[in-house]
Amino acid sequence: MTRRLGRRPGPSQTREAVLNAARRLFAERGYDKTTIRAIGREASVDAALVHHFFGTKEQVFVAAMELPFEPSVVLPQILAGPRDQLAERIVRFFLSVWGDPESRGPFVALLRSATTNEQAAATFREFLESALLGRIADSLGIDRLRVASAAAQMVGIVLLRYVVREETMANATEDEIAAMVTPVVERYLSGATSAVLTNRGSASPDRR
Amino acid sequence: MTRRLGRRPGPSQTREAVLNAARRLFAERGYDKTTIRAIGREASVDAALVHHFFGTKEQVFVAAMELPFEPSVVLPQILAGPRDQLAERIVRFFLSVWGDPESRGPFVALLRSATTNEQAAATFREFLESALLGRIADSLGIDRLRVASAAAQMVGIVLLRYVVREETMANATEDEIAAMVTPVVERYLSGATSAVLTNRGSASPDRR
Repeated sequence: MTRRLGRRPGPSQTREAVLNAARRLFAERGYDKTTIRAIGREASVDAALVHHFFGTKEQVFVAAMELPFEPSVVLPQILAGPRDQLAERIVRFFLSVWGDPESRGPFVALLRSATTNEQAAATFREFLESALLGRIADSLGIDRLRVASAAAQMVGIVLLRYVVREETMANATEDEIAAMVTPVVERYLSGATSAVLTNRGSASPDRR
Repeated sequence: MTRRLGRRPGPSQTREAVLNAARRLFAERGYDKTTIRAIGREASVDAALVHHFFGTKEQVFVAAMELPFEPSVVLPQILAGPRDQLAERIVRFFLSVWGDPESRGPFVALLRSATTNEQAAATFREFLESALLGRIADSLGIDRLRVASAAAQMVGIVLLRYVVREETMANATEDEIAAMVTPVVERYLSGATSAVLTNRGSASPDRR
């Protein structure tokens, strides 16, 4: 109501303006090149206010995309537990986020725009690398390709289960899927050697 | 030229009319409910002519979607070789199809429409199950969920590599990727037990 009297919008209007500005910039410039300062400028507010409302750039992104969790909060918790159950914690967390239609919605939207739009793919990629894959690889001290392969397994599962709705994958329980893929994720994250296969691979023709 | 004189279009016009009719029906009804007979009716030609031009419904689909290979021809070849290198043959074939921009184009298009359109997802799913997953599961006598999990791994890889262009996955060589994922596909297709993990899985909370 006071809004009609003065020039300044109220906090919730400002918040929404910042999120809209953030969505525009992330869509136009990608994740890496968007800064808190630029978002403030785009929303005509001070960068300090953006920071005050949301925190880091990653947190602005999470809020703008309405993601159901903050990687900077959740990942350290998952990574901190016993290492021999790490793969299971990751798989279970991932499946539970995707199992809930509300929390999977924003991820389906991200996946959809990444497959249809070059710039959206870049934004998704940069966020994925910065907020998730890089953190996991650094924390575990393993090759980034291992983390990406584990991510590919998980993303492929939810793509078949919730987007394509492949029958067996869509009808399986979370327990069945976790039992199937946890050993695989464990294999990737434990850094198990694949030297034998590398040799075999090099011997066979590469049609690339 | 003769076309201008009579009512009958030439063979290449008929062929194109059949493919257009097929694309419409696959898009509207999905893969399972589309028949050779219905495609003929939609294109105003005899079903026998559709069969004469293309063969089976699967072959009409392959031609209509411009897929770079026929599963009914390629899969038996891949499945027929030595079992202990089966996973590697599958991984290598899949990576070589996706490694070539021309042959991956139609699959990127299928994936894109499946993520954005409910009916396209159904068509993709039905074709995937009928032409690929079902055949592999039946031929190897293994659980369909194992084949779907292997498919999820492969689809996730190419999604990250060619669509999202995740850095490490996009920059890795085919050999590196094959070395990483072949043991995983092998594990799924060999039917290696996951009993230990199933028990562990059941003991932990299921947030589904």
